[in-house]
Amino acid sequence: MLRVSNKGRAIPESPIRKLVPYAEAAKKRGTEIFYLNIGQPDIKTPKVALDAVRNIDMEVLEYSTSNGSEQYRDKLVAYYKKHRINITNEQILVTTGGSEALYFTIASITDPQDEIIIPEPFYANYTSFSIAAGVKVVPINTSMEDGFALPKVNEFEALITPRTRAILICNPGNPTGTLYSKQEIRELKKLVVKYNLFLIADEVYREFVYTDEGHYSIMEEKGMDMNAIMIDSTSKRYSMCGARIGCVISKNPELISTVMKMAQSRLCPPTIAQIAAEAALDTPQSYFDEVKEEYIGRRNVIITELTKIEGVHVVKPNGAFYCLADLPVKNAEDFARWMLESYDNNGQTVMVAPASGFYSTPNIAQNQIRIAYVLEKEKLIRAVEILKDGLIKYSNSIALNQ
Amino acid sequence: MLRVSNKGRAIPESPIRKLVPYAEAAKKRGTEIFYLNIGQPDIKTPKVALDAVRNIDMEVLEYSTSNGSEQYRDKLVAYYKKHRINITNEQILVTTGGSEALYFTIASITDPQDEIIIPEPFYANYTSFSIAAGVKVVPINTSMEDGFALPKVNEFEALITPRTRAILICNPGNPTGTLYSKQEIRELKKLVVKYNLFLIADEVYREFVYTDEGHYSIMEEKGMDMNAIMIDSTSKRYSMCGARIGCVISKNPELISTVMKMAQSRLCPPTIAQIAAEAALDTPQSYFDEVKEEYIGRRNVIITELTKIEGVHVVKPNGAFYCLADLPVKNAEDFARWMLESYDNNGQTVMVAPASGFYSTPNIAQNQIRIAYVLEKEKLIRAVEILKDGLIKYSNSIALNQ
Repeated sequence: MLRVSNKGRAIPESPIRKLVPYAEAAKKRGTEIFYLNIGQPDIKTPKVALDAVRNIDMEVLEYSTSNGSEQYRDKLVAYYKKHRINITNEQILVTTGGSEALYFTIASITDPQDEIIIPEPFYANYTSFSIAAGVKVVPINTSMEDGFALPKVNEFEALITPRTRAILICNPGNPTGTLYSKQEIRELKKLVVKYNLFLIADEVYREFVYTDEGHYSIMEEKGMDMNAIMIDSTSKRYSMCGARIGCVISKNPELISTVMKMAQSRLCPPTIAQIAAEAALDTPQSYFDEVKEEYIGRRNVIITELTKIEGVHVVKPNGAFYCLADLPVKNAEDFARWMLESYDNNGQTVMVAPASGFYSTPNIAQNQIRIAYVLEKEKLIRAVEILKDGLIKYSNSIALNQ
Repeated sequence: MLRVSNKGRAIPESPIRKLVPYAEAAKKRGTEIFYLNIGQPDIKTPKVALDAVRNIDMEVLEYSTSNGSEQYRDKLVAYYKKHRINITNEQILVTTGGSEALYFTIASITDPQDEIIIPEPFYANYTSFSIAAGVKVVPINTSMEDGFALPKVNEFEALITPRTRAILICNPGNPTGTLYSKQEIRELKKLVVKYNLFLIADEVYREFVYTDEGHYSIMEEKGMDMNAIMIDSTSKRYSMCGARIGCVISKNPELISTVMKMAQSRLCPPTIAQIAAEAALDTPQSYFDEVKEEYIGRRNVIITELTKIEGVHVVKPNGAFYCLADLPVKNAEDFARWMLESYDNNGQTVMVAPASGFYSTPNIAQNQIRIAYVLEKEKLIRAVEILKDGLIKYSNSIALNQ
């Protein structure tokens, strides 16, 4: 029988994607939707990046080298140096987005059936890339009660098997907004060195940190050069998600040369986008200062407003631009769908992401949603107002139907 | 022990890549190299495509949809219609280059240990993508003696097992330049329908066909809608290899929806490059006419000049811009390296690709090279002159060392 890949390979549909048809139907009915479900910021891309694209001077749009243009990698070395990360241009491999960096990394350090431990909730596509590589995700639970803090060493140790190849963290975290401390990174180092594991850190939200102590990269930590792999991306940093430029960074030459073989097979990352990414490195500090101030303002607004709603629980995030919220509902996915399908408030509604899609353990956090605070403050205030009203109406409609 | 992926996953280094350090050393010594080893054309990218990039009007470089912008897919529908291919925009999924289209396709129709039959010699990265997906390539040999013609049906049938999922062809072919006839496509159809296999056709060289009957796409052939998957790319068509825009095309909705899940996990193809690719569709026919005339001229020059060398055998290609040549040497890889390491002709040398890297069967075609005729005619003439002289000097040096 003619058939596509069976369940061993096919990626499950996320609960976020499942809601898209309902959003499209709502839009068709004329309902205005506040999209709090995705990480597409409304922040402007730095002009210097777009201008570089407008000024391209070439007659043939050629391949770049497979690991990315040397000129761009040289400038990245200087960028990371400012962030106390000392690397050479040979330790950077430019990829088509952070997505490719993650997939190449996972595929390069595993064989099928190997395991990767990931604190959950986590970015849903970690599962997709793992499935594509035939790798098993082993979740280690973190919870709202203790602020989604990193689990203790002994909890990790209990999950390590002979097939464990790596621990993967996102710092600051999507969807939690949690920032790991230097001490927590140090604990992870001891663990990965002791058990010969890789420590993969997705640090794409590095510039979005709202505490005084700031971000501590795994690349700053000494004594795990062979273990540490950093994933980065220009998507969120410069609000240029459509560029599709990321990178894998590691001081482990065997890792880089294995990733390079995968990189060579797909020839090169997009050339024009590399020009944009290179120019983006000249973005003035004032841009980041303004963006950070804007996000702190948005975070404060969303947390303040959500906290006012009875039965809603949140943890104030220290980084990135997401927060998780427990709602006074049994099934957040059902509520999110209902908000699109059966509700509007003066012609407006809100789209949120059910958080269950960020958990690998089944049937937990069923009442949780992820909110991306990627809209202006007034819009966020209105969105939470709608959410509050929606929760009341939803609860009434549930009661009526029982 | 900390280790990267073992041999089950890691992609072997190609004999072409192995030569790069020798080329770099030769360049450092001041030797001018004629690069006949890679498919990076010197043809100008259509101005209309680069101008679209220069005129981008956006403030935020956003994600596109995962299957590519609808506007671009709509224009692609019109482009394919002109080529007698009738599809809808839902049957097109835009990818990051033909590379991603190939990987997504292979991964979507197989489970690990499945098999794909490919006429060899073939584009080396078919192996890379198959290895990445855990899939076994089953080569079916074609040879210079019969002009690299498609093997007979019974030869294919002898290789089909319960694990066979697809037959993959490249038409016109890289590295052979062979163009398959309507009759050959029809034979393949009977085969894939009979055995419930997919027929994947890499048709990225569609516009580079030098015969009167022209190109016949698998998408034109009726009666295998569920089986046919076409791979396409803008890289060669518009000489925009660095854009990284390709697509998967199929009328099989299950295939498209499976590929879509992989596409969603990597978010989207590059946004600016899609703008360039969309604008490129407005390239006037005169551009293709000129380019085709240029390549026919180059092909004629390279074949004429190569044929003049004693002991060199070639097949005149009917498409693409490659040809294979048997050389009067035992080991073409050794010769190609020697040309870079130990030879120059008035400060010039030639870099060619040993053809063994395009064969999956070990130890065949050891005396064969692939030439990409991507340089101007005068340069090609000079390059073959150097090659001829190099062959004499190489043969003398071999004799001396024996």
